[in-house]
Amino acid sequence: MSHIPLPDGLPGIRGLLTYSPTTAKPMGDLAEVLLRGPSTLTKGEREMIAALVSYRNTCHFCQSVHSAIAAEHFGGTDADYALVDLVKQDVESAPISAKMKAFLAIAAKVQQDGKLVTSADIERARGEGATDREIHDVVLIAAAFCMFNRYVDGLGTWQPDNPAFYREAGKRTAELGYVNRDYTAPVR
Amino acid sequence: MSHIPLPDGLPGIRGLLTYSPTTAKPMGDLAEVLLRGPSTLTKGEREMIAALVSYRNTCHFCQSVHSAIAAEHFGGTDADYALVDLVKQDVESAPISAKMKAFLAIAAKVQQDGKLVTSADIERARGEGATDREIHDVVLIAAAFCMFNRYVDGLGTWQPDNPAFYREAGKRTAELGYVNRDYTAPVR
Repeated sequence: MSHIPLPDGLPGIRGLLTYSPTTAKPMGDLAEVLLRGPSTLTKGEREMIAALVSYRNTCHFCQSVHSAIAAEHFGGTDADYALVDLVKQDVESAPISAKMKAFLAIAAKVQQDGKLVTSADIERARGEGATDREIHDVVLIAAAFCMFNRYVDGLGTWQPDNPAFYREAGKRTAELGYVNRDYTAPVR
Repeated sequence: MSHIPLPDGLPGIRGLLTYSPTTAKPMGDLAEVLLRGPSTLTKGEREMIAALVSYRNTCHFCQSVHSAIAAEHFGGTDADYALVDLVKQDVESAPISAKMKAFLAIAAKVQQDGKLVTSADIERARGEGATDREIHDVVLIAAAFCMFNRYVDGLGTWQPDNPAFYREAGKRTAELGYVNRDYTAPVR
């Protein structure tokens, strides 16, 4: 049971966003610009960073939803879902670009403590073609999910087990994004 | 040296907010509503939560600025600054209300992992008169500073040592808040 009364049938962050519209607005705006705004990183790459950080923060709701959103942006097939799982389990051996590996290594350090990011981590990313803007966004996406994860877990929200729920949620969010969403329809 | 080129003379988050206005807007809006919006928690109490979380995340810039903002809201005397230091060092023995101790205990758990917050932590706060809204806000303030701290540290920002800088910054932010701020004047 959640630590405060939240609207029935709204899992994870949905109940919180509905409970608190004044904070939901800037949080949605931040997610939208970071994960879907103009960028030389694809939406799938950015969601993969969100999924990895949420996985390492062991936030079941966030890691499940953002894994699904990443997979949907990658193409939405079972192979895309399997790829996201591989990345979460071991970034370095996963079949992704060297540049994405460098970004995910930075994100994994930010998940623990921003001070762990070294000049060598940054040089590795630059060596693979990373721009300043991309490095900035990778760090901020990782940092932002340290907020979202703690918000969702810290208030003891309901986090369904059913993988089909997350796949459907991932599809809808990949399509609709993070602003002007109506989350008030309860999940069955 | 910061990991990406940032405007000269703008310490901590200031350089980042200036570098990236599209993300600065929702981050400023979130800080404003959480720390200065309508609430039954005082601004000083909310800044104290921000300061404690930033202290525990060992983010020098954030913990120094938000400690100063809290102290300024408490009255701005040396005794107010000393009180903030006492709270950071040991919440339970500090001369603050039992309700604030309960909130800071929740915030300290969120700083580590939201899942550490127990029903007993929430009951302790409720026993001291905490409302649902206050519990929500305490968790989200703690979560948000896990983002701000990682953003500031993860990009290797310049964080001055000079306590006078933070005292002046605290005074100005206690007065002016987090939105429509001009951070572009370099710190001497």
